[in-house]
Amino acid sequence: MKLMSYVTSQGASYGLVEGERVYDLALRLGPSCPDLKSALANDALARIAGRLIAGDADFRVSDIVFLPLIPNPGRIFCVGLNYKAHREETNRADTPDPVLFMRGAQSQTGHERPLLCPIESDAFDFEGEIAAVIGTGGRRIDEARALTHVAGLSCYNDGSVRDWQARSTQWTAGKNFPATGAFGPWLVTPDELPLDRDISLVTRLNGKEVQRTTTDLMTFPLARLVAFISTFTTLEAGDVIVTGTPGGVGFKRTPPLFMKDGDVVEVEVDGIGTLRNPVIKERRAA
Amino acid sequence: MKLMSYVTSQGASYGLVEGERVYDLALRLGPSCPDLKSALANDALARIAGRLIAGDADFRVSDIVFLPLIPNPGRIFCVGLNYKAHREETNRADTPDPVLFMRGAQSQTGHERPLLCPIESDAFDFEGEIAAVIGTGGRRIDEARALTHVAGLSCYNDGSVRDWQARSTQWTAGKNFPATGAFGPWLVTPDELPLDRDISLVTRLNGKEVQRTTTDLMTFPLARLVAFISTFTTLEAGDVIVTGTPGGVGFKRTPPLFMKDGDVVEVEVDGIGTLRNPVIKERRAA
Repeated sequence: MKLMSYVTSQGASYGLVEGERVYDLALRLGPSCPDLKSALANDALARIAGRLIAGDADFRVSDIVFLPLIPNPGRIFCVGLNYKAHREETNRADTPDPVLFMRGAQSQTGHERPLLCPIESDAFDFEGEIAAVIGTGGRRIDEARALTHVAGLSCYNDGSVRDWQARSTQWTAGKNFPATGAFGPWLVTPDELPLDRDISLVTRLNGKEVQRTTTDLMTFPLARLVAFISTFTTLEAGDVIVTGTPGGVGFKRTPPLFMKDGDVVEVEVDGIGTLRNPVIKERRAA
Repeated sequence: MKLMSYVTSQGASYGLVEGERVYDLALRLGPSCPDLKSALANDALARIAGRLIAGDADFRVSDIVFLPLIPNPGRIFCVGLNYKAHREETNRADTPDPVLFMRGAQSQTGHERPLLCPIESDAFDFEGEIAAVIGTGGRRIDEARALTHVAGLSCYNDGSVRDWQARSTQWTAGKNFPATGAFGPWLVTPDELPLDRDISLVTRLNGKEVQRTTTDLMTFPLARLVAFISTFTTLEAGDVIVTGTPGGVGFKRTPPLFMKDGDVVEVEVDGIGTLRNPVIKERRAA
């Protein structure tokens, strides 16, 4: 299944995507499942699998506006330095455990929506990543069973305001500007894309490839991340783990390559698709 | 006013405290204000000020169980190293900007509820702090007007699992174990406690003073924190800023002084009161 969150003239909702067809699920799953997070928490998605008929589609993909895949996650855990090529380009030491920082939901945006370079900086950098969404919560999840807690994968652009990220040892400021984290276009569930498959991730800026990796190069694979994070907190349905960016980020290039007004950035992941966002430079109110 | 969040046999709610009397506000403010965060967001608290009569109290403080003051904040921004004495004891360099990390709501607990030292560590440290709750949201708030966005102050014990905090450069893991952040007992609004008053903060472990400061010693005072944070994100009603701990934390003592099973830890702030928590060492299920 492919699942997405969106908004139409009828309001915010979520649904199942088949090709160009969108089947609204808020309607079909009722008031206990008003959004994708609650549908995951209630394990409600299996109820609709295979029961939809093409003629019953509610929208076409071209009719909807994409929201961040999970607009309201409890937590977004982002993993830093999870590919050796990126760790080395940033001159960071080897880390025995995952490096984790948090984004707030307000920093997100959806597929095809603008990524916003704030007034305060011109050092707005791309970070193509793969995001995992928790389906079944848990604490102290065993690594061997960890992937059974994951509802599926999506693309993420963990856009980073580098000068603000570097203003202190903790990266919070540079990772929480509004509309800097793009999340989508949809969730692909393990029946379509097995979680242990080695997949490739490519980031393109204005059509030119700037990052490429395969997931077997992750320092801490997804199962280890789920196990580690669930040691210090109870993971919940809808929590997001953004699994880290490979080498090639803009601020370590000579000269640096930042995203600027009018750019288009894409994160393409095998078996998921392409998350595409125009970049807009925020302007001061007149 | 003093405002608190609590749970009784009738469920979770929030109210106004006068001495031993608690006036339930979920009842009085109606379905648009089911919790303290929504009451702040709807600017609804002024409606009840001065209209309550002693005989109408719903509970006594001794009848309720304290919840974290804001059980469901959008974000909890914690400030690291905001007192010179603490920065120096941790051998950290001077920082030109606030050091910010994030807690999730799930890491919190209420006044008189146990602080939980996890199975995975014995290095569970106290950090007495003052928490500010945002009343009126905003972006790019001018420092001169910043305090008008603050609904009031409370006590916070930013309990830290030191070995997990140190597992990578980012402190997320050590600051997000369940029931490690105590928040309460109540919010004191500026009519009772002006936000620009120099107040003292004391932490006691088993009755013995372990931290003491006054807020004039903050490196970045509250108005500056609100202005800084609102530069990179839109602050919202119910967001929490935990303003940093002074010197005296346990892990920099010789020998280290950690919180252990059976301890009682208190954070007392002038004009607010005392946040008190027993410490329990988590046990493995039999």
